[in-house]
Amino acid sequence: MIEQRQLDEAIELGRAQALSCAGLDYSRLLEPVAGYPRSSVVLPDRSVVPGYPSIGRIQSLEAGLPRQFQGPFWAEEKIDGFNVRILRRNGSIYAFSRGGYVCAFSTDRAPDFIDPAVFDAEPDLVLCAEIAGPDTPYLEGSTPRVEHDVALFVFDLMRLGQPGFLNQADKFALCDHHGLPPAPIHGRFGPDDTEALAKLILRLDAEGAEGLVLKTDDGRDRAKYVTGGSCITDIRACAEQLLDLPPQYFTNRLTRLAIFLAEHPEMDRDATEQALGRAFLAGLDEAVGKSREHGRVDHRYRCRFRERASAQRFIEHMRSTGGRHVRIGNDMPRPEGDYWLLEFERLFDHMTGTLSSALAGDQQYD
Amino acid sequence: MIEQRQLDEAIELGRAQALSCAGLDYSRLLEPVAGYPRSSVVLPDRSVVPGYPSIGRIQSLEAGLPRQFQGPFWAEEKIDGFNVRILRRNGSIYAFSRGGYVCAFSTDRAPDFIDPAVFDAEPDLVLCAEIAGPDTPYLEGSTPRVEHDVALFVFDLMRLGQPGFLNQADKFALCDHHGLPPAPIHGRFGPDDTEALAKLILRLDAEGAEGLVLKTDDGRDRAKYVTGGSCITDIRACAEQLLDLPPQYFTNRLTRLAIFLAEHPEMDRDATEQALGRAFLAGLDEAVGKSREHGRVDHRYRCRFRERASAQRFIEHMRSTGGRHVRIGNDMPRPEGDYWLLEFERLFDHMTGTLSSALAGDQQYD
Repeated sequence: MIEQRQLDEAIELGRAQALSCAGLDYSRLLEPVAGYPRSSVVLPDRSVVPGYPSIGRIQSLEAGLPRQFQGPFWAEEKIDGFNVRILRRNGSIYAFSRGGYVCAFSTDRAPDFIDPAVFDAEPDLVLCAEIAGPDTPYLEGSTPRVEHDVALFVFDLMRLGQPGFLNQADKFALCDHHGLPPAPIHGRFGPDDTEALAKLILRLDAEGAEGLVLKTDDGRDRAKYVTGGSCITDIRACAEQLLDLPPQYFTNRLTRLAIFLAEHPEMDRDATEQALGRAFLAGLDEAVGKSREHGRVDHRYRCRFRERASAQRFIEHMRSTGGRHVRIGNDMPRPEGDYWLLEFERLFDHMTGTLSSALAGDQQYD
Repeated sequence: MIEQRQLDEAIELGRAQALSCAGLDYSRLLEPVAGYPRSSVVLPDRSVVPGYPSIGRIQSLEAGLPRQFQGPFWAEEKIDGFNVRILRRNGSIYAFSRGGYVCAFSTDRAPDFIDPAVFDAEPDLVLCAEIAGPDTPYLEGSTPRVEHDVALFVFDLMRLGQPGFLNQADKFALCDHHGLPPAPIHGRFGPDDTEALAKLILRLDAEGAEGLVLKTDDGRDRAKYVTGGSCITDIRACAEQLLDLPPQYFTNRLTRLAIFLAEHPEMDRDATEQALGRAFLAGLDEAVGKSREHGRVDHRYRCRFRERASAQRFIEHMRSTGGRHVRIGNDMPRPEGDYWLLEFERLFDHMTGTLSSALAGDQQYD
């Protein structure tokens, strides 16, 4: 709960932003306010959905497990998607993005995966979930865990007005009872179980999965640990925007992959090298091809909405916030079966400029 | 020539820096002054050695040749080393680095490659040359053109007090007459000779060479064009400092390689992917190995001096300017044959910090 005076002052000072979407007036915190972190959401009754906290990453099982955990922990699968917080207000379900906006897409699609009855029984529940799959408006890549469209995986539960997350036992029980789709659980381990976890992560790697989030029973201590392959998958998905993403996107993944290889010498090194080189060059090759063909390097996204109004809300949001140049056709959204299909393109400015200048034969100074 | 008043004012304003080395008082320009570019060198008589101008890069032969050249041009080999400007003053030879410092190493070694008699005949001559090889104090990689130690390749000539470079004919004649070692010449071409140049660049690529600098007869219009392999070689040499170099070092080379592959489809794509992946991972693997072994990621350089005093001047210069952390043993330099050997290490701060924290099992937030 935040006081009205504090909220007004935060808005005044540009530390919070008052917004309205789909009948809900809310504010998102742009900086920490009254003890709540950035990206927290303030609801009309001034109850607060805390910003979802970053989970620290370990890069070595052998050193990281004993350093981060004193007792047993659960190994949950980390799904490669985007993070939302879902709740019900005034009879409607809302999903908030990591940044604290109502996400028109997730808000529209959540009922496909969640029985709203859960909020009859647990009105103060907040579901923290990953939305993943080939058809999202945000992600270039997908996950082998979702073949078509999108799916939703609940990985944490919160209660409005109560700090922290529900413990694992309560989370499992509630998911089970209300048929909430959980992130896959791969067992319970201890800080000495380096070998068992190494075996598990290599299996996940072979399956193309992203990795694990390790969590203690009380849900308080947590760490993530990802597969080497996920570094390559990310590079492959984003190489066509090589000059538009922060370069750390790539250098972090390269470093992570090297540490992963050093800790898992049983990995096929030749195949990994080949896959890494291919990841960069296949993505860049697409960019060069697009630049040659139509002078632009862009990426096409597609996603489906249940309601036409949701798609229109999403389009408005893109137009008002779109830091990255978005091009949406006038014929969008258009009906596809029971859904409304939205396709649009994001332009990668730097790739477009650099490649078109290079391919035109300009001189470049670097 | 620059006026004393202009020079004094530039020093006063921090646009030039007054220096002294090996008996020579000189200034280097930190910014353009009196029409001279940054990195120009002002000699005691206020004559000026202009900063060596950047040469623009073309990334496509087909588009770049007709765009950059109206008539014939020479294809000179670009040697992967570092650029110096060499002249004689008060009976001594001095070599200035790209940044405009007297380079104690190049100044010491120049007489191994250049007959000082050239300056008896041509006292106002300035030689622009690349110094390359496995034993330099600056470079992590080397060139297949130099097997041992270092060598020197003259690629341009200037005359003090005269703007621009000597034309190609005069350059060839003077090099020939005075036995100056030239950068290899691979022929004369025209803007339509895309195919012949493509054949040449692929041969150079196969030989592990860096690429070409294309220059018109009058030496005025110029462009560089490098091999795909040189991008991979650079990445291999510098991957162990992945987090310490500007990330553009890597992203530029990746983009360049992709464009090269697109323009030369006869390249072996699989082999290139493998080599690229290996370049990143082999370098990073060395970094991980060094971090595990002695908690530091560093690189060992070795170079040889004719004079002990030169090595000591070089050490002083490193200590006074060394932005990158340099560790030089107290036993350096030590005699090796007719030379004085200097070995030292540069520490890569970010790699050292990131890897030691990751390998210790710390949590990282990215």
